[in-house]
Amino acid sequence: MTVTPETDMSDLAIASRAVLQPIFEIAESAGIPQDALEAYGRYKAKIDPALLPDRGVKPGKVVLVTGISPTPAGEGKSTVVVGLGDGLAAAGSKTMIALREPSLGPIFGMKGGATGGGYSQVLPMDEINMHFTGDFHAITSANNLLMAILDNHLHRGNALGIDPRRITFKRVLDMNDRALRNIVIGLGGPTEGVPREAGFDITVASEVMAVFCLATGLNDLRARLGRMTIGYTYEKTPVTVDDLGAAGAMTMLLKDAIKPNLVQTMAGTPALIHGGPFANIAHGCNSAIATNMARSLADVVVTEAGFGADLGAEKFMDIKARYAGCDPDAVVIVATIRALKMHGGVAKDALKAENVEAVRSGMANLARHASNIKKFGVQPVIAINRFTEDTDAELAVITGWAAENDIECAVADVWGQGGAGAGDLAAAVMRVIEAPNNFAPLYELARPVEEKILTVVQEIYGGDGVEYSAAAKRMLEQINANGWDGLPVCMAKTQYSFSDDPTLLGAPEGFTVQVRDLIPKTGAGFIVAITGAIMTMPGLPKVPAAMRMDVDENGNAVGLS
Amino acid sequence: MTVTPETDMSDLAIASRAVLQPIFEIAESAGIPQDALEAYGRYKAKIDPALLPDRGVKPGKVVLVTGISPTPAGEGKSTVVVGLGDGLAAAGSKTMIALREPSLGPIFGMKGGATGGGYSQVLPMDEINMHFTGDFHAITSANNLLMAILDNHLHRGNALGIDPRRITFKRVLDMNDRALRNIVIGLGGPTEGVPREAGFDITVASEVMAVFCLATGLNDLRARLGRMTIGYTYEKTPVTVDDLGAAGAMTMLLKDAIKPNLVQTMAGTPALIHGGPFANIAHGCNSAIATNMARSLADVVVTEAGFGADLGAEKFMDIKARYAGCDPDAVVIVATIRALKMHGGVAKDALKAENVEAVRSGMANLARHASNIKKFGVQPVIAINRFTEDTDAELAVITGWAAENDIECAVADVWGQGGAGAGDLAAAVMRVIEAPNNFAPLYELARPVEEKILTVVQEIYGGDGVEYSAAAKRMLEQINANGWDGLPVCMAKTQYSFSDDPTLLGAPEGFTVQVRDLIPKTGAGFIVAITGAIMTMPGLPKVPAAMRMDVDENGNAVGLS
Repeated sequence: MTVTPETDMSDLAIASRAVLQPIFEIAESAGIPQDALEAYGRYKAKIDPALLPDRGVKPGKVVLVTGISPTPAGEGKSTVVVGLGDGLAAAGSKTMIALREPSLGPIFGMKGGATGGGYSQVLPMDEINMHFTGDFHAITSANNLLMAILDNHLHRGNALGIDPRRITFKRVLDMNDRALRNIVIGLGGPTEGVPREAGFDITVASEVMAVFCLATGLNDLRARLGRMTIGYTYEKTPVTVDDLGAAGAMTMLLKDAIKPNLVQTMAGTPALIHGGPFANIAHGCNSAIATNMARSLADVVVTEAGFGADLGAEKFMDIKARYAGCDPDAVVIVATIRALKMHGGVAKDALKAENVEAVRSGMANLARHASNIKKFGVQPVIAINRFTEDTDAELAVITGWAAENDIECAVADVWGQGGAGAGDLAAAVMRVIEAPNNFAPLYELARPVEEKILTVVQEIYGGDGVEYSAAAKRMLEQINANGWDGLPVCMAKTQYSFSDDPTLLGAPEGFTVQVRDLIPKTGAGFIVAITGAIMTMPGLPKVPAAMRMDVDENGNAVGLS
Repeated sequence: MTVTPETDMSDLAIASRAVLQPIFEIAESAGIPQDALEAYGRYKAKIDPALLPDRGVKPGKVVLVTGISPTPAGEGKSTVVVGLGDGLAAAGSKTMIALREPSLGPIFGMKGGATGGGYSQVLPMDEINMHFTGDFHAITSANNLLMAILDNHLHRGNALGIDPRRITFKRVLDMNDRALRNIVIGLGGPTEGVPREAGFDITVASEVMAVFCLATGLNDLRARLGRMTIGYTYEKTPVTVDDLGAAGAMTMLLKDAIKPNLVQTMAGTPALIHGGPFANIAHGCNSAIATNMARSLADVVVTEAGFGADLGAEKFMDIKARYAGCDPDAVVIVATIRALKMHGGVAKDALKAENVEAVRSGMANLARHASNIKKFGVQPVIAINRFTEDTDAELAVITGWAAENDIECAVADVWGQGGAGAGDLAAAVMRVIEAPNNFAPLYELARPVEEKILTVVQEIYGGDGVEYSAAAKRMLEQINANGWDGLPVCMAKTQYSFSDDPTLLGAPEGFTVQVRDLIPKTGAGFIVAITGAIMTMPGLPKVPAAMRMDVDENGNAVGLS
């Protein structure tokens, strides 16, 4: 690291001061032979899994970083992943980071990039945030090729008898574009396609993205793509991608994208950044191929799951770990004093003032997440992502609670100090992963779908029960009739609350979760349970972040954050 | 070249046998310093124009390859570009090739790739044809970010007073997807955008693509993007991208894409492949930046214009050369015996039989193209792209006509022999470019729009006059009122005929061209004159080429052609 910490600098400004090592040097330090490296510019490379040697040792331990229920105050999970990875590497562990790729939609909207922050960033920040190595574009193309083939099939006589009213698959763009949510296509007369209702999702919501991230190799990718259900015939028989004959061309479009992307942190720790499915209607973690590649190269792999632990971590353990075999050895739950205060009832504009009582009250959220993790047979580690205004008394509420409950807990200053601010956290994580654990998913796949959903609602959310809409009940019958009931469930729930009501912060009790609809994702291999208004195509805010973006006189990006 | 010619092999099979040189070696041979090279894998690289040294010599000569009016028999222009480039290099000239990037739409539809054929290909064929370095994806993203910002503007109160019925800009996808031609967006109620009629074009038809290909640098790119007209207010005032504040973010998305891509031919000749606008509603040549970069590096640059010489070559000289300064020193007109027979009235299934009379009759098409080129003050060179069934008597019709008319002419076998089959053609081209020429565009920009269109119709097409629809007349008034009348014209006409009737082959006379509409492209900097049903979003055929595409057990593409 050749940057000097300063305050009042944007993430982009800090990132642009860093001096990066050539990617072939990072690869060398990670034990990746040059033959397996396909450079994309000087600081990015794709790694061909087929060309990696066998280290002859057990796969690396998996440290899953998750968080408390998110609040507008922010938790900084990705920043902790990077800082913890740098901290573990600095302490002498052969470490690799595995993260999701950012989506262009939120970058131009409100959220900004997803490459960490401050002195805990993966680089080159602007390139990772924009286009990167083109994986999301390839996924967009594969998804939309499928849809062009589907609508061409309708136009050319519809030999499969597909009911245009029962097509469930959508086109995608990697953009926040609300006007494309509900559209009518195929207008203009008999030469212009078959009119039907349709819509676009954002690329990260595509089942192709979920398939991409759960596939364990190119053959598995092709098989999963072929199994995706795109809709139903007039007789309500499911129609798959294989029925349309599109899986081969889709796989061809994805053959390079499926190779994980190597970059570096500001401290030179190798990071694989690959894939990025939603954490509500999908499972919310980077690709299985990247996680397993990182395990084959390093002794400790730090990776992340989207949203709070009730969504991201549960799905990592019940979906991704089942398919990819990457069982976690420790689960880090990121919390901030600010966010706990919000869970404790403080408004966003009053977060800077010390409020020990609110922290204590908000602890209920963290405590439930921590006890949930233990239900999977893994030990949680609490990471307090420190902000400058946090007081010792506030921090003591968390550390005291953790000590009383025999849970590892550390304060980390990763934004301001990078890996140097994560020494205690790294030590706590090492203690946990070196101890034995007995990981197991929460439920057995063979149980009925309703039982699997109820288990998650009761064990993880703390709810009383589940109610199904008429539509969900009809779909349940169809799922059972089609033999899809052996799949894991993927809960699509608000990330802001354990319940399906985003206003119930802290650790709500006595609620019933409403399942409005069930969506079988037969390629990804899970049943999505829709429990609220889940946005699969975001919109732009009143003043999009895009408005302040530009290039400077040297052709560098400005205004990215 | 380490391939052995064989018959009965597909282009992909031939390409996959070639042993490529590492791209840094190709760069070195082209005089590109390693600092300017950003590798994308082993065999592709982006070249930063800012990091190229000044050779201290005059820019290289420009050899423009164009063709007779295309027929279903095929002419093989790109194959001739590659073969001629290899032939010139083999003869000792410091040569560089500049070509357009292929579009995914036609690849999955019917036409196939656009990387030459046989032993005259640019490589790696499959990567260039799919995704390449992501330029088209970046253009798609920039175009669609603009549209998301536009529809968000309508949704957020429409402060600019944009009339949703008069929005002329469309979203794009790099896909043949007819069902997206005419759509209604923004349905679903007050939170889901403003309902309006809209549509998608294929990415190569985007004005962003035309801007990308005419810009001479990043600043010019940003300025041109900002000048694009997206529609009109309720008061019919034009609304530009700068009015929406979107040019900065769009430029940021394009900042890497705008760097030309270096690849190699099968013989190791360096080739820049960059940009790819339509040759009907746009100007149909690779980027100005790539052409000028090639001229700065090589003594001879072989480049191509889309469709026949009446469209592609006319636009190269009247639009691209004006903006980019890359005046042609020779124009190669590619013809095949088969295609001339079709112009002479032979049906496609009777092309293999010798028919000297039909060739003689079809010569009228070639003759008019050749005499047109002279009107720009440049000498044409006729390249007969030889097929095995061509007879000596048939070939003699063309060579005899050329000799009588004092026009250089050579027979080339580039598909079967690569550069070795283009020796005579290379010699003919060298004779022309070493002689003086007095290039000038066909018309002066200061003339009225109608006069510019009439000049092209009479001088190039051989037509009598022009008729304007009521809509075109109204738009002409608006163009004059808005001060856009000083722009060059970009004729959107069928490529199959000199006239606007695709069935009139050969060299038709006595026709009037119907201008149905005029579309000001104020960013690209031309006025499109629509003279027929111009397809800006193709559809897939009954059996799309995608159906036979797949990956093999080693992860390699199969079924590409």
